[in-house]
Amino acid sequence: MANVLMLIDNNYEDMEALYPYYRLLEAGHSVTVVGSPAGTYTSKHGYPIKAEKSPSGIEIKNFDALIIPGGQAPDRMRIKPDMVRLVKEAVKRDIIVGAICHGAQMLIEAEAVKGRKATCYISVKTDLKNAGAVYEDSPVVVDGKLVTSRHPGDLPDFCRTLVEMIK
Amino acid sequence: MANVLMLIDNNYEDMEALYPYYRLLEAGHSVTVVGSPAGTYTSKHGYPIKAEKSPSGIEIKNFDALIIPGGQAPDRMRIKPDMVRLVKEAVKRDIIVGAICHGAQMLIEAEAVKGRKATCYISVKTDLKNAGAVYEDSPVVVDGKLVTSRHPGDLPDFCRTLVEMIK
Repeated sequence: MANVLMLIDNNYEDMEALYPYYRLLEAGHSVTVVGSPAGTYTSKHGYPIKAEKSPSGIEIKNFDALIIPGGQAPDRMRIKPDMVRLVKEAVKRDIIVGAICHGAQMLIEAEAVKGRKATCYISVKTDLKNAGAVYEDSPVVVDGKLVTSRHPGDLPDFCRTLVEMIK
Repeated sequence: MANVLMLIDNNYEDMEALYPYYRLLEAGHSVTVVGSPAGTYTSKHGYPIKAEKSPSGIEIKNFDALIIPGGQAPDRMRIKPDMVRLVKEAVKRDIIVGAICHGAQMLIEAEAVKGRKATCYISVKTDLKNAGAVYEDSPVVVDGKLVTSRHPGDLPDFCRTLVEMIK
């Protein structure tokens, strides 16, 4: 089965990390949570999740997909070059990259959206466009191996699409 | 697709309600959240979920499955006869009933476990046995249409089993 990487930081949106996390386990995949540094992070509502790895311990070539949840976590991750590097390498190697809500901020930081169709949380829309993306207001937008959604209400579509793509 | 009922009360375990909730939506089913009274309830970590119905508005004959999450919510639900009635009727009509963690307390209250294989959170084990259940320490236990699990770590097995059974 597939090896999936999930980026995490504090104040992540609970369901945008935890539903994909459990959903991919349910499908039989391995999910490695990575934070800078490794350790326990908590959601907007205080739900803990353990990042067992730091970015320095990760080689993207060993992974099939990378997931970026939303909340305030991407605003924290984007100023950590080791976290941004993971997204850059994932895009360069053309593995599946899923980003929901404010997760798109990491795509912007990794210069990963120029000329690509994508969506995001409404407040990030202008930044996504300014970074060169072709913004679409849809529950899930797929452009090659880039999968994006807008908010927690899109999670069923986001996860259904990711599970279909990650084999 | 199926109509699924989910019982809710305050201090529910976040993932034990929200992952099955989103997972069943992802599978194309309808999920009706019911609380006594209808209104917004919050998880152990403060995550809100809206119960759009109260038990008086529910006829079990219109549903295919009933889910009972854990946390401290079942301790609250079990002293509300209108909530317990839903479980009793679900068992009587032999629809699929899924209970995880402390959710088993509602099965006990509804006298639904006598002679049936089931599991639950470790602290509830003695109560489950005393209610006549054949306790098993497994990630998911299926006895007819009764599906039980122990804790959040069992959620991938719990949801995979429910999704296979609910068509």
